[in-house]
Amino acid sequence: MERLKIVKIGGHIINDETALNAFLDDFSKLNTPKILVHGGGKSASTLTQQMNIEVQIMNGRRITNAETLDIITMVYAGKINKTIVAKLQARNTNAIGFSGADGNSITAIKRPVETIDYGFVGDIQKVHIKTLKLLLNHGITPVFCAITHDKNGQLLNTNADTVASELAIAFANAYATELYYCFEKNGVLEDVNKDNSVIEIIDSKTYQTLLEGNNISEGMLPKLTNCFHAIAHQVKKVHIGKSAMLLHTNTKHTTIQK
Amino acid sequence: MERLKIVKIGGHIINDETALNAFLDDFSKLNTPKILVHGGGKSASTLTQQMNIEVQIMNGRRITNAETLDIITMVYAGKINKTIVAKLQARNTNAIGFSGADGNSITAIKRPVETIDYGFVGDIQKVHIKTLKLLLNHGITPVFCAITHDKNGQLLNTNADTVASELAIAFANAYATELYYCFEKNGVLEDVNKDNSVIEIIDSKTYQTLLEGNNISEGMLPKLTNCFHAIAHQVKKVHIGKSAMLLHTNTKHTTIQK
Repeated sequence: MERLKIVKIGGHIINDETALNAFLDDFSKLNTPKILVHGGGKSASTLTQQMNIEVQIMNGRRITNAETLDIITMVYAGKINKTIVAKLQARNTNAIGFSGADGNSITAIKRPVETIDYGFVGDIQKVHIKTLKLLLNHGITPVFCAITHDKNGQLLNTNADTVASELAIAFANAYATELYYCFEKNGVLEDVNKDNSVIEIIDSKTYQTLLEGNNISEGMLPKLTNCFHAIAHQVKKVHIGKSAMLLHTNTKHTTIQK
Repeated sequence: MERLKIVKIGGHIINDETALNAFLDDFSKLNTPKILVHGGGKSASTLTQQMNIEVQIMNGRRITNAETLDIITMVYAGKINKTIVAKLQARNTNAIGFSGADGNSITAIKRPVETIDYGFVGDIQKVHIKTLKLLLNHGITPVFCAITHDKNGQLLNTNADTVASELAIAFANAYATELYYCFEKNGVLEDVNKDNSVIEIIDSKTYQTLLEGNNISEGMLPKLTNCFHAIAHQVKKVHIGKSAMLLHTNTKHTTIQK
């Protein structure tokens, strides 16, 4: 089976042009079919402030009202996505920017209101890989922002880590798919204050031990849930760490496996 | 030769959701391969005001400084483009949003500074149709905002009418290409105050007569220059009028031909 690498980058890379350029240098050198998924970074919050829009927060979670969705669409699908695509073209990586609406690639349903109405937040229903596969087969690299749609004309805000893992799962039968979460730390750490305390391999067994010992930081928990969800659905391996791990395979990082 | 329809819509349709929905109903019913090009509409100016950014104007022309380019990228490539793509998906038209950076489809050069520095404005250098053709052949409809790139990582603001005509010219050898400029009037008018005074056919000869008689309004002049440029480069026909002309061919409008 041909390999496919799906790489997710978050705010720390997007917010820092030097880091973004260095990442894109590495990413463009990957010589397998590849897909990039990017999060949002600080620009959405900055724009929200500049426009004097109130951020609604409920139980510590941000509500995506219509104004916030507009801002997210402008910043994620517009500014960040097109900047990355143009930078990849300059590196001779033929990229096309995607939201889930483009090519009808990711359909989602608006999260049902139970105790909280999160607004225009989408839970992924299905990833349609046909068009994406056509592009990959022609050497084109899809670049995803974390916006999906409900196929009825409504765009929806979706978690970027989840977009990456659901894409990986959807491709797992067509390609030997590996998923990379690039972030500012070297991987999952035994001690969050010690950047060198990387847990190099986490399998289902060590994961259980970590969970039982309450040894996983709050921010890392949903990321790991995504990882094991992907592994349970035929994704070969998931890697978590600094983006140097993409090209320099001996870079210390965390690998999640069965 | 298979037919291809390239349709450009401007601000009056984009600014009015009812008009946009009606247009997209018609556009999605076109049963030939098709490409949509959209202009900007009012949202960019609104956002510029909301963000308290000063609009720089020189000799009556807007200067695209870095801040303005950011806004244009957010509004055109983000909000407007993704809204249209999602609305087309709801109408079972499988669309993918494009800037000129996506698929490296339109490269441009930053307009050279002569007397005025227009800033990040791009004059189209080349339209690369390979990826677009692949998508058209698979029933996918590209939706273009009027942003190009220089292949060195810089996005550039480009006139939407020109994007449409240059796309049409680039496809003219591969498809029997027709170009449609949809706007708020019924076509090129003999008397701008009489919406019924449509000149139904303009060929090179009548165009000369109109030019010599100073009978073309200032706003229409660059549009007509684009049209005849397209006609001179093997584009079959150019149509100017209200979007009803797309489906209802007996709708009075202006046809530009050799």
